[in-house]
Amino acid sequence: MNHDGSTLSRRTLLQSAVLAGGTCALGPVMNTAAAQENAAPALSMGNVILFQGDSITDAGRNKDAPDANNMGALGNGYAQMIASQLLGVHSGLKLQCYNRGISGNKVPDLDARWQADTVDLKPNVLSILIGVNDIWHKLSGKYDGTVADYEEGFAQLLAKTVPALPGVKLVICEPFVLRCGAVTDEWFPEFIERRAAARRVADLAGATWVPFQSMFDDAVNDETPPEYWAGDGVHPTMAGHALMAKTWLEVTGLG
Amino acid sequence: MNHDGSTLSRRTLLQSAVLAGGTCALGPVMNTAAAQENAAPALSMGNVILFQGDSITDAGRNKDAPDANNMGALGNGYAQMIASQLLGVHSGLKLQCYNRGISGNKVPDLDARWQADTVDLKPNVLSILIGVNDIWHKLSGKYDGTVADYEEGFAQLLAKTVPALPGVKLVICEPFVLRCGAVTDEWFPEFIERRAAARRVADLAGATWVPFQSMFDDAVNDETPPEYWAGDGVHPTMAGHALMAKTWLEVTGLG
Repeated sequence: MNHDGSTLSRRTLLQSAVLAGGTCALGPVMNTAAAQENAAPALSMGNVILFQGDSITDAGRNKDAPDANNMGALGNGYAQMIASQLLGVHSGLKLQCYNRGISGNKVPDLDARWQADTVDLKPNVLSILIGVNDIWHKLSGKYDGTVADYEEGFAQLLAKTVPALPGVKLVICEPFVLRCGAVTDEWFPEFIERRAAARRVADLAGATWVPFQSMFDDAVNDETPPEYWAGDGVHPTMAGHALMAKTWLEVTGLG
Repeated sequence: MNHDGSTLSRRTLLQSAVLAGGTCALGPVMNTAAAQENAAPALSMGNVILFQGDSITDAGRNKDAPDANNMGALGNGYAQMIASQLLGVHSGLKLQCYNRGISGNKVPDLDARWQADTVDLKPNVLSILIGVNDIWHKLSGKYDGTVADYEEGFAQLLAKTVPALPGVKLVICEPFVLRCGAVTDEWFPEFIERRAAARRVADLAGATWVPFQSMFDDAVNDETPPEYWAGDGVHPTMAGHALMAKTWLEVTGLG
């Protein structure tokens, strides 16, 4: 953890919250969230687990089935793999698992649908993976959000989430890319800066951080090139999703 | 294992093979298969893993994507969960995983499409789950196959598979039902007889047996009623599929 980075980030984010006229004091809320996260039991009876994000989370889910634990509605990716394992292992807890990832989403897209698609579901565990489109759409000229926009937008999203969902366990997944397919040198070093920004946002919120980038970096070798894990560098293969699910369950300790 | 049952069955099946004019001597082929299975390494470079069966295996797979390791083409069920975990764990082996389950299939339906959908894919590991429609469609008046028809048809399917796929590792999954939904008293005791028939076929073929019925029987309790694992008594929920995947990986030792 880069404590210097976190300190600088906290100041920037506090300023952002003030400038944005936020109704909560970001710092204290985040400290409370951190305390709650540390003290929270693993999973309790009736807990709601929600996966939010972009196409990586979406993973071809059936959006016509809004009910919990619906097989097709969880998609074919890491969210479904995690949810099914949680439902299998914690069979007595009557867990409710949802996927609300939507392909192409960036932080502002999450923000626009946050109340209906996140807060109203009252998750006890909220897992978010967002960021790759924030840079990808910028590189392709469809969006002009900067790294600072990403960090501030993401932080503000969490700042309004924590008071709306008392006791929520936040899980922030590291945005990642593999060096292949659509991922060219043009993505760097900005993508590294965006990962660092996501990490600062997670730390400030007291969230559990799932290090998907270092996980994939460790998994790439001569026998398993980047394409094995994500054919286009962005969207994981089945193997990539399985690795993500395994790491998510290990890091959160919820498996 | 019911050795008396196996002995009786072997005689019946040998007779069946002779009557059917099979080109191989069923006994020796099966003994060879058993020896191969015991001696086989877990998984090797480039191995093909194929899941065959009915709707439980199908699990909503995209049938327009015939290539290996295609996320949507593996469906949303136990086959996809197993395949993704194998691909994630054995990342250096260049495994190729296929799902060719088709909703509504019985043994005769598998037989009719066996060459194209099984033999031509040259699986090194062939996992089969078949049998619930063989009784369900009979109970609903759409089919008239007896328990003996099921046993003989299943045994003959394997008898022609083993010589066509030298060294194949056979995994036979126990047909199962949960006592809820569509599964009424009318299913018994015939369903129990059909499970025993599948077990005899598996033993005779030297296949690995995955005991899904006892697994689900053990999983049902006051907190997790039958519906938690299979809403209609036949088609598993996400939790049910996850439990199946976990058991399959444990029993086969391939995880």
